[in-house]
Amino acid sequence: MGKRIVVALGGNALGNSPQEQLELVKGTAKPIVDLVEKGYDVIIGHGNGPQVGMINLAMEFSANQGGGTPYMPFPECGAMTQGYIGYHLQQAIQAELRARGIHRSCATVVTQVVVDEADPGFQNPTKPVGSFYTKEEADAIAAEKGFTFVEDAGRGWRRVVPSPIPRRIVELDVVEQLVSTGSIVITVGGGGIPVVESEAGWKGVAAVIDKDRASALLARDVKADQLIILTAVDRVCVNFNQPDQRELSRMTLAEAEEYIAQGQFAPGSMLPKVQSCMEFVAGSAGGATALITSLARAAEALEGKTGTVVEK
Amino acid sequence: MGKRIVVALGGNALGNSPQEQLELVKGTAKPIVDLVEKGYDVIIGHGNGPQVGMINLAMEFSANQGGGTPYMPFPECGAMTQGYIGYHLQQAIQAELRARGIHRSCATVVTQVVVDEADPGFQNPTKPVGSFYTKEEADAIAAEKGFTFVEDAGRGWRRVVPSPIPRRIVELDVVEQLVSTGSIVITVGGGGIPVVESEAGWKGVAAVIDKDRASALLARDVKADQLIILTAVDRVCVNFNQPDQRELSRMTLAEAEEYIAQGQFAPGSMLPKVQSCMEFVAGSAGGATALITSLARAAEALEGKTGTVVEK
Repeated sequence: MGKRIVVALGGNALGNSPQEQLELVKGTAKPIVDLVEKGYDVIIGHGNGPQVGMINLAMEFSANQGGGTPYMPFPECGAMTQGYIGYHLQQAIQAELRARGIHRSCATVVTQVVVDEADPGFQNPTKPVGSFYTKEEADAIAAEKGFTFVEDAGRGWRRVVPSPIPRRIVELDVVEQLVSTGSIVITVGGGGIPVVESEAGWKGVAAVIDKDRASALLARDVKADQLIILTAVDRVCVNFNQPDQRELSRMTLAEAEEYIAQGQFAPGSMLPKVQSCMEFVAGSAGGATALITSLARAAEALEGKTGTVVEK
Repeated sequence: MGKRIVVALGGNALGNSPQEQLELVKGTAKPIVDLVEKGYDVIIGHGNGPQVGMINLAMEFSANQGGGTPYMPFPECGAMTQGYIGYHLQQAIQAELRARGIHRSCATVVTQVVVDEADPGFQNPTKPVGSFYTKEEADAIAAEKGFTFVEDAGRGWRRVVPSPIPRRIVELDVVEQLVSTGSIVITVGGGGIPVVESEAGWKGVAAVIDKDRASALLARDVKADQLIILTAVDRVCVNFNQPDQRELSRMTLAEAEEYIAQGQFAPGSMLPKVQSCMEFVAGSAGGATALITSLARAAEALEGKTGTVVEK
């Protein structure tokens, strides 16, 4: 049994079209298989921002503009992205494993993530999804479907959905089973398909779960040794874009709290990544650490050559 | 360890919209959980005809008519249906398990199925997919993308894709791992995402794999005790729709061959189901049998009260 690593991949790193994605996953597969080659058991969480945007937009356009296909709810669009992204990712990882002569399986598990219906996020939807509408169109859809719309920087009105906190991964035991027997598992795609508990079982809700938070929850629940959040930069900085900018090689939970209090990390960007790392480290056993770095340098970062480590 | 059953569900039984599907999977979950309750280990294969048609149509419409989303290849549309259908099916089965107090996991594995590039099916594409076009439009797309179009009963020109024979399930070991530890697994959705072998690994191809044949291959490879192909009727008939119509309670492989030679089973309908059953039985150990029946009566059929058994 190797050490367990959960890797959180950004949806933006997967491109904006199937051709781009198919090409980009090849580059993604290499550093992931580097980790496998180093003896780690790897579980992959990934974002789906551009992809769920694309599918939701296409389904909406076709349903509204005479394409003759039915309206597609948002959680179902998310489920589609898990198939679409998972297929490309697992195929690329399988090819990379085979090229290196490593006999390990890789597969995607369609994954639901439970959120709390009472989550304050539901009172304050913030994530824009789908097409731009005129005020009149938006009002009509809002009246019909109960959606919330906001005016988006002069470009029109756009639906917003909440971003509630992930509470539980429904298919966790399936993921655990596969990882414990040597498979590389792709899960919580797009942060997971958001569901709430109802008397009749889980029920999809229109929401976007932050993929870093879902990956942090996953890492905690599979008792990972490390969570790696991949992003566009090699290291987290303080005093970002200022003359005294400084790269961090490590920070403790207390230091991270201090930096957050100083407003060092941008909300919607580095802040949720740092917070996800903190959640995992705080909720895990002693030695567990989190790492923020770039995809290209993930393997080096694990050797301490780059990246920012978050620790107790 | 219970006996293993592979159940092949029709895509038509899942409806034509997400609302219909969400309702219909509840009815599907009951007989499946009946099998679980009787002690069987259940693996589910399913079709995706209407669903991949819908997604392909919407993506095509949006890409062509100004929706601003990229063109989506056919295998990727199939991958999306695995997420979309798998999500609903696993959610419904999880709810039914919970309602009966059965502690078993259920999850969908995104699954590729290998076909042979030299399969004669590639020379003779027959499965219509996507929109209707005029002859001029079809010619232009054929020249640009290399697609094959056929005239469809006066309604226009439509793309056709091949239906090659499934050879190997890429994620078989993952499915095996989960089934052997008590999970109910949903796999080979839509017959699987069709891939061919290339130097660089698996590669998606535009094709439709018959879901009954893929389920038969799955059943053989997981060494299932039984394959159940669910369809609209309780039993297979000979002299169908004639005064001397006769329901079959069982047929041997030799009898099945004889009926086929007589032209008893309609191509594209009962014939491939009977052939899939024959392939599984012929390729499996002594006691393995296949069963064709309706979803509603699956549990009764297993007790021999209805259904048509195919045996050695």
